[in-house]
Amino acid sequence: MTNGHLDIIRRGSKLVDHLVIGVATNPSKDPLFSLDERVKMVRAETAELAQNCAAKITVEPFDDLLMAFAETIGAVIIIRGLRAVSDFEYEFQMAGMNAFLNPDVETVFLMADAKYQPIASKLVKEIASYGGRIDQFIPKRVAHAVRAQIADRRRRKAAP
Amino acid sequence: MTNGHLDIIRRGSKLVDHLVIGVATNPSKDPLFSLDERVKMVRAETAELAQNCAAKITVEPFDDLLMAFAETIGAVIIIRGLRAVSDFEYEFQMAGMNAFLNPDVETVFLMADAKYQPIASKLVKEIASYGGRIDQFIPKRVAHAVRAQIADRRRRKAAP
Amino acid sequence: MTNGHLDIIRRGSKLVDHLVIGVATNPSKDPLFSLDERVKMVRAETAELAQNCAAKITVEPFDDLLMAFAETIGAVIIIRGLRAVSDFEYEFQMAGMNAFLNPDVETVFLMADAKYQPIASKLVKEIASYGGRIDQFIPKRVAHAVRAQIADRRRRKAAP
Amino acid sequence: MTNGHLDIIRRGSKLVDHLVIGVATNPSKDPLFSLDERVKMVRAETAELAQNCAAKITVEPFDDLLMAFAETIGAVIIIRGLRAVSDFEYEFQMAGMNAFLNPDVETVFLMADAKYQPIASKLVKEIASYGGRIDQFIPKRVAHAVRAQIADRRRRKAAP
Amino acid sequence: MTNGHLDIIRRGSKLVDHLVIGVATNPSKDPLFSLDERVKMVRAETAELAQNCAAKITVEPFDDLLMAFAETIGAVIIIRGLRAVSDFEYEFQMAGMNAFLNPDVETVFLMADAKYQPIASKLVKEIASYGGRIDQFIPKRVAHAVRAQIADRRRRKAAP
Amino acid sequence: MTNGHLDIIRRGSKLVDHLVIGVATNPSKDPLFSLDERVKMVRAETAELAQNCAAKITVEPFDDLLMAFAETIGAVIIIRGLRAVSDFEYEFQMAGMNAFLNPDVETVFLMADAKYQPIASKLVKEIASYGGRIDQFIPKRVAHAVRAQIADRRRRKAAP
Repeated sequence: MTNGHLDIIRRGSKLVDHLVIGVATNPSKDPLFSLDERVKMVRAETAELAQNCAAKITVEPFDDLLMAFAETIGAVIIIRGLRAVSDFEYEFQMAGMNAFLNPDVETVFLMADAKYQPIASKLVKEIASYGGRIDQFIPKRVAHAVRAQIADRRRRKAAP
Repeated sequence: MTNGHLDIIRRGSKLVDHLVIGVATNPSKDPLFSLDERVKMVRAETAELAQNCAAKITVEPFDDLLMAFAETIGAVIIIRGLRAVSDFEYEFQMAGMNAFLNPDVETVFLMADAKYQPIASKLVKEIASYGGRIDQFIPKRVAHAVRAQIADRRRRKAAP
Repeated sequence: MTNGHLDIIRRGSKLVDHLVIGVATNPSKDPLFSLDERVKMVRAETAELAQNCAAKITVEPFDDLLMAFAETIGAVIIIRGLRAVSDFEYEFQMAGMNAFLNPDVETVFLMADAKYQPIASKLVKEIASYGGRIDQFIPKRVAHAVRAQIADRRRRKAAP
Repeated sequence: MTNGHLDIIRRGSKLVDHLVIGVATNPSKDPLFSLDERVKMVRAETAELAQNCAAKITVEPFDDLLMAFAETIGAVIIIRGLRAVSDFEYEFQMAGMNAFLNPDVETVFLMADAKYQPIASKLVKEIASYGGRIDQFIPKRVAHAVRAQIADRRRRKAAP
Repeated sequence: MTNGHLDIIRRGSKLVDHLVIGVATNPSKDPLFSLDERVKMVRAETAELAQNCAAKITVEPFDDLLMAFAETIGAVIIIRGLRAVSDFEYEFQMAGMNAFLNPDVETVFLMADAKYQPIASKLVKEIASYGGRIDQFIPKRVAHAVRAQIADRRRRKAAP
Repeated sequence: MTNGHLDIIRRGSKLVDHLVIGVATNPSKDPLFSLDERVKMVRAETAELAQNCAAKITVEPFDDLLMAFAETIGAVIIIRGLRAVSDFEYEFQMAGMNAFLNPDVETVFLMADAKYQPIASKLVKEIASYGGRIDQFIPKRVAHAVRAQIADRRRRKAAP
């Protein structure tokens, strides 16, 4: 979860009455944290926003197709961020297939703020793995947890 | 005005309570029709949608910055369609500058439906200028008007 | 094998006297079906086209460089589909290196039909893995086989 | 006409029995030479190829939609070169609209050879307008004619 | 001249001993200011940098090919900014042709800082033409001059 | 290491007084050769250049963030090659994050020469794995070593 994600959440919360932040299992990405830990993190980072915002904000894990999750929670729109041309092509395919699956659920896109454009979570993870500074890219508590998690992984590797 | 525009209007009308379709003067594009004619065309093509739609739909001309127009009518979001990578880069710059001008007005994007992707109004105009068939790309009444307008222009050129 | 592939095959068959559809081993993609199964599927899906088409159509497996396969079967042109900008860059590199390897075998490209553009086999597989509907993206028999295969894999995982 | 165009012509001539090189009026591009002069140039540059090539090669001017020209001459395929991502998007739209206009005429693409990729006729013209060397980008006779034409234009401007 | 240009100049000044900022005539872009005015503006905006910088900084107008200008002033490298994919393709062609013209003059690129990415001078001009706020995109003195110039143009149009 | 890399090294050596060629561990790429072997290869291929060049050229392995390595060796600029649009987006993100990490180390880019554009090391490796000719893409000694290494791997696989 980067500052760029938080910015999209904050801006998205102004567009709807109820914003559900879905946290996917994403087994292919080998996430640093468990699904449960990630849901808690997103809740912690959005708690303040949730209190000062006209929209209701909830955070929910899901292990399903995005469209199936959207249908389960009764969503009428899906909000996604766009950062780069490569995002655009992938998202265009996703939006197109989702429109086939259910044309009544509309996908809308917000352009990432320019200052968050270079922040890719994959690069943040790489910087962290070498002990580099990551505090300017992701929320403080998340940065703290990432460092702890990476130190922990290293310790376990060293002592089998 | 192409079938792709109509599709974005139809889908956008489901996202808001009041959809204002702004028709720009666009002096640089050398439009076939006057601003007034274009407003009337868009009204005619969206009349049916406007009757069957929960949202209020209005069509208004503007000769101003998009953001200034949005502020004048009290819009809180701007809806735009995205079709190609080149669109993406231009719209990314536009959205970024508009966020500087007024961060309270959010720009949201809808991906053009795949079947409307190749329909560029510039190419439609070029096809029409050679007398080619354009009925599959734009609404019938608009196609009729385009043909009439081009025939008229040719006549005027021939007889000065 | 998606509807997009079939469209490229159908259009490609009009360009040549003999169309050989090469089915690659692709070990890196972890295919759902064995090479033999995939060859049979492609044969089944193209059988009807093969009967109504002036060109001879054959389907052949290969475990080699594309250019080496082309040389083995005596091909003079290689036909490939282009769907997105990211395809374009990869295919540009492939075509360039193949021209180095053998400048006498020309690579020609067909643009994917707009309505098949969003159909990426990776996304279809993902939809299928969650039990989503895939019949609108791939041929019926293939969709049936994919569902059976995924159910089978799940069963084997559950009962080791 | 650049070395890149000649390369596409040479490679395209191996794909068909009869290659018709269409030379468009292109009023919007403000060409240096008249349509007639351009047809003669293309004929001169392709004369040698035409003699040593199994395919028949002819050069014809046209002032029409590309698809209408293709239908007039009874073409079954249109061959186009692809050089860059921006080409790709434009050509994708063109090919899509042409497939709507007449699905029986297939558009096929050849990737520009890497060494001709940076050669854009607009840049060549700009270099020539400042008296820069252009012989490595375009055929010798064409370079000679371009220089003569630019000198001539300058003279006419100077002496009204 | 935008804040993005100034950023590239500031960063470029750290790479060389002598930085020559070339100001092109650019007749095709219909610039708001004369070549002479633009040279003075760039000098004013870079004066402070020039005093605090190890490199010598000079500003010079030119009405020639970029490479010819580089040769005239004895430059060994050309520094250019990259902002978007469309920039990339154009600059790739330019750098390629310049390498043909003179392989001893190397073109190097700096990526625009993310926060200046959306700032396109064409859009700034459009905003200014409608009386919008432009102070956050370009230096103060330049913004002032742009507003004065546009007001002046309007006055002259109104009173012929 | 391809001919394209060598070209960037050769051109980069003209821009600085001391060029350090960093060879990364890159565990994710599953390299054919050990870090030590790769360093030796790069030294062998650049030895001749190093003797005829005004700049000092050294080759060093690193297992760290690029920026941390740059700081360790006291680099003030990082030189990288750009080949395609997909490179551009990744490098834009990298350069942006590196500027956050240390704004005093500037990243500069050189465009790959057009004739090396299609040469992707991943494709070279694939060609080699099928026994295809790779001598036109990479230096002779490297090609020889790649072939030997692949043959060796195959032998070990066959005889466990």
